[in-house]
Amino acid sequence: MLSSKGFAAHSAQTPLAPFTFSRRAPGPTEIAIEILYCGVCHTDIHMARNEWGQSMYPMVPGHEIVGRVAGVGSAVKKFKVGEIAAIGVIVDSCRKCEPCDRGEEHYCLEGPTLTYAAKDRVDGTTTMGGYSNNYVVDERFALTVPANLDLAGVAPLLCAGITTYSPLRHWKVGPGMKVGIIGLGGLGHMALKFAHSFGAHTVQLTTSPKKKEDALRLGADEVVVSTDEEQMKKHAASFDFIIDAVSAPHEMAPYLALLKQDATLTIVGLPERPPSIDIFQLISKRIAVAGSMIGGMPETQAMLDYCGKNDITADVEVIPMEKINEAFDRMLKQDVKYRFVVDMSSLK
Amino acid sequence: MLSSKGFAAHSAQTPLAPFTFSRRAPGPTEIAIEILYCGVCHTDIHMARNEWGQSMYPMVPGHEIVGRVAGVGSAVKKFKVGEIAAIGVIVDSCRKCEPCDRGEEHYCLEGPTLTYAAKDRVDGTTTMGGYSNNYVVDERFALTVPANLDLAGVAPLLCAGITTYSPLRHWKVGPGMKVGIIGLGGLGHMALKFAHSFGAHTVQLTTSPKKKEDALRLGADEVVVSTDEEQMKKHAASFDFIIDAVSAPHEMAPYLALLKQDATLTIVGLPERPPSIDIFQLISKRIAVAGSMIGGMPETQAMLDYCGKNDITADVEVIPMEKINEAFDRMLKQDVKYRFVVDMSSLK
Repeated sequence: MLSSKGFAAHSAQTPLAPFTFSRRAPGPTEIAIEILYCGVCHTDIHMARNEWGQSMYPMVPGHEIVGRVAGVGSAVKKFKVGEIAAIGVIVDSCRKCEPCDRGEEHYCLEGPTLTYAAKDRVDGTTTMGGYSNNYVVDERFALTVPANLDLAGVAPLLCAGITTYSPLRHWKVGPGMKVGIIGLGGLGHMALKFAHSFGAHTVQLTTSPKKKEDALRLGADEVVVSTDEEQMKKHAASFDFIIDAVSAPHEMAPYLALLKQDATLTIVGLPERPPSIDIFQLISKRIAVAGSMIGGMPETQAMLDYCGKNDITADVEVIPMEKINEAFDRMLKQDVKYRFVVDMSSLK
Repeated sequence: MLSSKGFAAHSAQTPLAPFTFSRRAPGPTEIAIEILYCGVCHTDIHMARNEWGQSMYPMVPGHEIVGRVAGVGSAVKKFKVGEIAAIGVIVDSCRKCEPCDRGEEHYCLEGPTLTYAAKDRVDGTTTMGGYSNNYVVDERFALTVPANLDLAGVAPLLCAGITTYSPLRHWKVGPGMKVGIIGLGGLGHMALKFAHSFGAHTVQLTTSPKKKEDALRLGADEVVVSTDEEQMKKHAASFDFIIDAVSAPHEMAPYLALLKQDATLTIVGLPERPPSIDIFQLISKRIAVAGSMIGGMPETQAMLDYCGKNDITADVEVIPMEKINEAFDRMLKQDVKYRFVVDMSSLK
């Protein structure tokens, strides 16, 4: 057994607090990593505070994990002790169904095992996340990290990165397309970087005029203030694809009005209230509203490799573990550019 | 001018009643047709009763029109006097935009001209529909009708037919696919016939167990009673495509649960209340909710030609014009198999 320490939520109402627990020693195909950085995702707040009604306590959140390999099982091929490894939102799946066979473990028909607050398929315990000093995972669900990237900036790629990279790839975003990003937060700023990098004409849609400069710096070709009806009207029926990265409840109609015939708006944020969709908007342009969730392991590796080649990381504010509750509060006020990342050396 | 007579709604609250009016004589590229049959679409009720809040009176409804050519303009090429011609939901468009250029006049960027209750692009009058004895239309927006088909059964093809044919073609429904049809009414029974004819494994989803026999006769490989949770569970995550042809408000979640990863549910019915969509359902399988509206003129002609080759028409109950108000009431009770069609000889 490995002894572990981290920060846990002990109830929906109390702040995260120090917590010690243990993890199994790595099996033949597993690795143990010493966690260096863990990103702070909006999901961590939803889960810690039981906003989706499925939380179990104590809960160690965190699913944007970068660390150093500290131990490897006898059959491990991909990693050596001392190398850098990363873990994202899922750490296991049935490994037998069609989606798993084609490397889409996130759409596993039995459901993938989430990195925290889920039942571990190996030992039946509750998975404990990356707000901690170590993790044990099968090498299939661990990723290699390009050597040139800043490791704190890599951590958010494991959720915010792949969550936006995957739909942009799936809907074939590239040159000649006009692509909109709704929301400039953790997910939105990664969507912006990727859409720009893929060669699309990239438009940041935001309710905050003061984010304009930053959006342009991050790769936007244009910035549209979505509360300005005049600006929105100018862009009506002109977008080939829109990615909705806002996790607060919001109206869909103004954004659906921006789509061209046969275009798609894909939701990757998770508001608590379901949106209401105007059917007339859908049928009058044969448009679609879709959803997308992270990505499979091969695509997550491809995303990290792409980031290495194109020097892409998240814009982060590094904090010590003891500032996590303050970070949660600041995130709810959108007071972060654009992702908090916990430096796990602060746990020692 | 042509003198015309028909039945019109004079307000949202009063029954349809006899009405006389006039139409322009056909211009060089236009034809005049003597209407033989006109289908009764649910839209006619919505519009006559101003349920979408955009109605103008007097209104002559009707956009599933089959008739005999009674006059042709000097430049008309497609039709001769005495031939059968059909008119659907639209009778004009800008004819200059990209969608018009590619024969998708229904998605005209300026908006197509609807067959009734719309502003005519030629003479500025309000278009009057097919609950009448004649119509004048540009030959581009008139269709030829295969000689082997029953004309009363052809009329509903002009809206119910193309509205279901077009999305089934767009989403490439064919052999090897499992396709669901929600609702067995005017649209649903056409979707069922087409999906079956295209070679898909076709499943009728219905709230009425008593419709089972009829659905099997119309081409369903299976019938699932959608209020039966056990039956629905057996079909979870197994559909490649679902077409939603229900015009009464209904929950989407049970149907979205039936979709496979990457599948689409396309809405063609028009409930008064917008549906609420569960984002978790969308993202957990990367599924989409889309809409589709009738079809362009080339595709509508292709649909009619396909029906001729495959001997497909709507199942209809032919009524005289004076029974239209009774027909509206019976439609709201789903008491029709599956489309009322007005025999216009009853107007004489």
